[in-house]
Amino acid sequence: MFRYTIILLLFLITISCYKEKKPDTHFLQTYPIKKVVVDSLKHPWSMAFITEDEVLISEKDGALLKVNLSSKQKTIIKGFPKDLTDSIRVQYRGDNSGIFEVLLDPDFKNNQQLYISYAAKQEGEGSTTKVIRAQLQNDSLQNIKTLIEAAPYTKEYFHYGGGMTFGKDGKLYVTVGERLFKEIDEPELPIAQDITDTRGKIYRINADGSIPKDNPDFGSTAVQGLYAVGIRAAQGITVHPKTGSIWFTEHGTKQGDEVNILQSGANYGWPIITTGGYRSRDYVPPNIEGAVFTNPTWYWRHTVAPTGLVFYTGNEFPEWKNDLLITGLSRGSFWRFRIENDTIKSTEELFINSRVRSRKVVQSPKGKLYMLTDEDNGKVIRIQPNKLKQ
Amino acid sequence: MFRYTIILLLFLITISCYKEKKPDTHFLQTYPIKKVVVDSLKHPWSMAFITEDEVLISEKDGALLKVNLSSKQKTIIKGFPKDLTDSIRVQYRGDNSGIFEVLLDPDFKNNQQLYISYAAKQEGEGSTTKVIRAQLQNDSLQNIKTLIEAAPYTKEYFHYGGGMTFGKDGKLYVTVGERLFKEIDEPELPIAQDITDTRGKIYRINADGSIPKDNPDFGSTAVQGLYAVGIRAAQGITVHPKTGSIWFTEHGTKQGDEVNILQSGANYGWPIITTGGYRSRDYVPPNIEGAVFTNPTWYWRHTVAPTGLVFYTGNEFPEWKNDLLITGLSRGSFWRFRIENDTIKSTEELFINSRVRSRKVVQSPKGKLYMLTDEDNGKVIRIQPNKLKQ
Repeated sequence: MFRYTIILLLFLITISCYKEKKPDTHFLQTYPIKKVVVDSLKHPWSMAFITEDEVLISEKDGALLKVNLSSKQKTIIKGFPKDLTDSIRVQYRGDNSGIFEVLLDPDFKNNQQLYISYAAKQEGEGSTTKVIRAQLQNDSLQNIKTLIEAAPYTKEYFHYGGGMTFGKDGKLYVTVGERLFKEIDEPELPIAQDITDTRGKIYRINADGSIPKDNPDFGSTAVQGLYAVGIRAAQGITVHPKTGSIWFTEHGTKQGDEVNILQSGANYGWPIITTGGYRSRDYVPPNIEGAVFTNPTWYWRHTVAPTGLVFYTGNEFPEWKNDLLITGLSRGSFWRFRIENDTIKSTEELFINSRVRSRKVVQSPKGKLYMLTDEDNGKVIRIQPNKLKQ
Repeated sequence: MFRYTIILLLFLITISCYKEKKPDTHFLQTYPIKKVVVDSLKHPWSMAFITEDEVLISEKDGALLKVNLSSKQKTIIKGFPKDLTDSIRVQYRGDNSGIFEVLLDPDFKNNQQLYISYAAKQEGEGSTTKVIRAQLQNDSLQNIKTLIEAAPYTKEYFHYGGGMTFGKDGKLYVTVGERLFKEIDEPELPIAQDITDTRGKIYRINADGSIPKDNPDFGSTAVQGLYAVGIRAAQGITVHPKTGSIWFTEHGTKQGDEVNILQSGANYGWPIITTGGYRSRDYVPPNIEGAVFTNPTWYWRHTVAPTGLVFYTGNEFPEWKNDLLITGLSRGSFWRFRIENDTIKSTEELFINSRVRSRKVVQSPKGKLYMLTDEDNGKVIRIQPNKLKQ
C-alpha cells in the first residue's frame, strides 16, 4: 500500500507538471481582431468609462451620449452648453469643430464631475476651444463651469486640440491647437510661439480651473496655465502608467506627424522647426532669438494623422504590457509602440488589412481595448485577441 | 513514516508545479539586442552556413571568405573568377557592383556545390550579373560553371539584383536587376518589360543551369529561364517555410519600395506602374497592350531600400515564429512582418534606436539570427533576446 501510494503520487507529480511544461504556443500567436460593439454614432471622438459597460461617448458631430456597451442603449445627456458649434459643420469640408474629449474626474464616483472640451461659438466672431467642468446628474449636465476659453474666437474651423488627461499629479492637462490650416497665414510672431496667445499650447490647471503654483514661468505677459508651447495640432494626450510621463500626438502639415513627451516649459518648435514640410513653399519661418526647441520623441515620414492614444495595461495581450497604442485618421492607422521606460524601442503598424479611419483607442477599467471610428456611421469597435494555432 | 512520505510528496507536487504556474513575465518582455560577432568586412552582402559556426561570407567590395564565427578566423576562398569587377568600384559613388549572394546547394554536405552571383566585367563593354556554380574544395572554387550571364554587358553600375534562393521544388530562383538608374533612359519598350532582354527579371533554373520544363511560357522569343518580369531592382528573395511561397524585396525610385510574392509568369509592372514616383517628372511610361500587372504584397510610403530577408523559424524569439524579417539599406531599417499564411498582418520596425545600414538578415541552421552591415568596416551582428524584467 505504501509503495503504491508513492508510485501513484510520483505519477501525479509527473502528469500534473507535464501539462504546465507544454509551450503555450497558441498564446504566442495571439493576434488582435475587431468586433463592432456599437454603431450609428456621429463621428465619435472620445469615450469615458463610468463602469465596465456604461460609457460616455462624445460625438464630434452629434451629442454627448451615455451608452451601455452590453444592451447598446443610448441616452442623450441633456444640458450641453448652447454655445456648441453646429451649423458651420455642414458648410465646411474638413471642419474640425464639434465635441471633443469627455473625461471623468478621478473621483467621479463620489463627485460626479466630468470635463468636456468642445468648439464653442460666439455670434459673428467664430469659434474657439472651450473646456468645461460639469456634474452628471440624472443624465444631465449640472453646475457647469468654464475652465478654459481659448480666446480669441476666430473663423477658422481647424485644429482645436481638445485632448485632456489627468496627470499622476492630479492636474488636468489640456491641448489647444493653433487653429490655422496654412502656416503662410501666421502673424509675424507665430501663434504657437506667442505666449500672449492662447492657441498652440498645452495647459496645466487644477480641476477647478485655478492655476497650480508650480507651473512653469513663462513671464508676466503669458496667458494663464501655460505648460508648453510651439504645438500645432495636438489631440491625443495620455499618461505612462509606470513613469508618469505625459505623451501627446501632434499633426504635421506635410508629414511631420509626431509623438512627444510633455516637459514643463518646453517649446516644441512649430512653426519654426518641423520634421515635415510646409504647406506653402514660400513660407520662411522667423528666427526667434533665444528659443530652445524640444525634439519630438518620434516622427513618421509619412502621414498618419495621429489622434487618441493610450498605454496598454490590460491582460488580453500580455506582450503589449505598457506599450503605447496610437490611432490615426489617415489610412486607418493603428500603431503599437514598444516602450522601455520613456524610450521607444519599436513601432508596429497593426490592422493593415482592415483599415478604418480611427479617432481614438481607449481602455476599459478592466483592461478591454476599444477603438472609435471617425465615420458618418461611427462605431465602437472592441479589439480582442484571436488565438491562432500555427 | 507512511504519512510523512505522503506529506512530503504532496509538498513536492506543490512546489514543483508552483514554479511552472508563475506567468513567464520576463519572456513576454523579450526584446532583441545586437552584439558584434565579426568586423573588418568590406561591405558584406551575404552569409551561408556550412556549419553552425563556419560560414561563407561574400564581401561586395572584397572577396569570398570562409569565417569562423567563434574563433573569428577569416580565410579567403581562392579561385574566384577573374572577371569579377574591381577597379570601377572606386570610380563611381553609389556603384552597386561586386560579389552578391553566396548560396549552398541543399545537398552541399555531399556535393560541396555552391552558387555565387556577382558583377562580371568584359573589357571595354562594361559589366553584368553573372551566376556561377562551383565546388568548394580546400578553400578553393573548383569546377566553375556559368549558369546565368545576363548579357548585354553595359556601363551602368546599378541594380544587378543577384538574389538567390532554392525553392521547395528544388529549383534555383535568381533575381536580375534592370541596371538603369533613371527610368528616363528606358528604351521604347522598357527593359524589364522586354522578354528578349535578360534584365529586370526573375529566373527559375535547375541547379545545373538547365531550364525546367514546367517554367511559364513567355513565347519563343523570350530569354531562357524567365519566371517573372517587370522587376526594377530585387536583391532579397526567400522561401516561406510553411506555404513554400517565394517572397522578394524590390527597390523603388522615389519611394515605391515593395515586398512581393513571386508568381509564375507574373509581370510586376515596372516601369509602367509603380507605387512610388519616377525620378524624372517628364517620364511617361508607354502603354503595353494586353499587359496584366501583379500588385505588390506590401509597399512602404517612405524609402527603406529593402534588401535581404528571411522567414524566422528559430526559438529565441518564439513570438516571431514564421514572421518575415527584412533589412533595408536606408536608415538602418530592420522590419518584422507578421504573416498569416501569405497575408501580412502587421509591420514592425525594430532597432529604431540603434540604426545601422543593413544589407541582410540571415538565420543559422540552429535558428540564431544575424545581420550583415553594409559599411567600410562591415560587421556580422548577432541578434539575440534581451529578457527584460518589467
